[in-house]
Amino acid sequence: MDDNTRRIYEKYGINPKEREKENQEILNKRMKELSDLNRDRLVKEFNEGLDKNYDDLKEYLFFYNVTIFKELESNIFQNIQCLIVNAYSASITLTNLILERLLKLTLIQNEIGLDPVRIEDWNETYKETHRYSKMILNETIKLCHERNLINDEQEEYLTDMRNQFRNGFSHYDPTKILIDHKETAEVHFSNENPEKAYDIEVNMKQIPVLQYYYVKQFARENALQYFDYVFHLIRSIEKKLKYKHNYEGSKKTNGNN
Amino acid sequence: MDDNTRRIYEKYGINPKEREKENQEILNKRMKELSDLNRDRLVKEFNEGLDKNYDDLKEYLFFYNVTIFKELESNIFQNIQCLIVNAYSASITLTNLILERLLKLTLIQNEIGLDPVRIEDWNETYKETHRYSKMILNETIKLCHERNLINDEQEEYLTDMRNQFRNGFSHYDPTKILIDHKETAEVHFSNENPEKAYDIEVNMKQIPVLQYYYVKQFARENALQYFDYVFHLIRSIEKKLKYKHNYEGSKKTNGNN
Repeated sequence: MDDNTRRIYEKYGINPKEREKENQEILNKRMKELSDLNRDRLVKEFNEGLDKNYDDLKEYLFFYNVTIFKELESNIFQNIQCLIVNAYSASITLTNLILERLLKLTLIQNEIGLDPVRIEDWNETYKETHRYSKMILNETIKLCHERNLINDEQEEYLTDMRNQFRNGFSHYDPTKILIDHKETAEVHFSNENPEKAYDIEVNMKQIPVLQYYYVKQFARENALQYFDYVFHLIRSIEKKLKYKHNYEGSKKTNGNN
Repeated sequence: MDDNTRRIYEKYGINPKEREKENQEILNKRMKELSDLNRDRLVKEFNEGLDKNYDDLKEYLFFYNVTIFKELESNIFQNIQCLIVNAYSASITLTNLILERLLKLTLIQNEIGLDPVRIEDWNETYKETHRYSKMILNETIKLCHERNLINDEQEEYLTDMRNQFRNGFSHYDPTKILIDHKETAEVHFSNENPEKAYDIEVNMKQIPVLQYYYVKQFARENALQYFDYVFHLIRSIEKKLKYKHNYEGSKKTNGNN
């Protein structure tokens, strides 16, 4: 409390120390109320999201029969947690991560095969495949396609996704994200006089407030579909890898079956 | 049901149609049980996360006094939703998005100033600043620094973050993410004979199962701290922009205060 405030309090017969305590209590109470409101909002978003979205999402929680890419389960679970509460930007950026990792693991597993590697051989085996860990998505898509781990259609789809979702969101570049949108949007503009109201054609991809609005809408409309594509791609590639490396046969030969 | 199964059922006096119905009911019941278990897991993770993490996170939900970067609130809320349920990878990839957008908005707002732009002038005004929307993080960090919107220390920190968090996670490159880790880890290895057990020095950044383990650990240990840094950077830049453009003064001049 500054001296001036203290003098005023004293002038009106108020005990400065007591008043300060009272003020602090009022502030604490208000902060507690606000904090409880925010907590309630988080609970509400979760409960409402769960009721509304769980049926559409539950199939992704059955990550059965996936063995080669088992490690992706943890990020898939996180993605469901995001989609439950409509955290669409979080979902898209995480799907990007899953896709990046999936294609790298694909190239690694394709090179070393599917039989377990003995711990003594880890260093030597993975030294060779480490070059894949450093690759960018452009390269991993290309190599997966060349090695028949993804087909023509998947290669084409992923190349589009790479530009729109991966590069669009990882650089936050609205021009890339909104590539399928037209360049302009109409905004209804009215001055004081409603009779003089008119529509203005605005460059929606260049104006921050519209970039925000349309990117948010895009994320809401596309997050689940993008995640769904990558989710099914995991199974598709796993099947191909197993077929290519004759997984069951190889297990039998080793006497592990 | 194939013919063979049908014949077997009939041989034992079982009505094939009824048995098929029973089987389907058993399967449906089992799927329902599993689905309920998964739902319970989501609820449990949320409730436990809220109890455990809310006190550490509640301050970020008070996004008060932020006016220029108000649009970031939505992604900040999503980030809290992620951190509540320990979705650390989701949080880091989303913080990357917030940072990318923050620096672009900073350069745009710095160029056009803080006074509201009339809708009629939107096209012309933002045509000039659109070049910032297409920039990569390297360029926006550099320009924000040159224009005194971030200080030397922030520029240095962000340059490091750019390599480790932004590039590391957006390419899923363990070598970048784990740049501060040593190259090898010791794994205890025992064959059938426990007396012959020994430790093996393995290249942790090159071996997929270890990449997974250490990247996950890194995300858990650093997600909140990284988000916290970017959260406070928003306020820091907003202050600088307001000071530089003499925000309050400018509002007064326009008679809006």
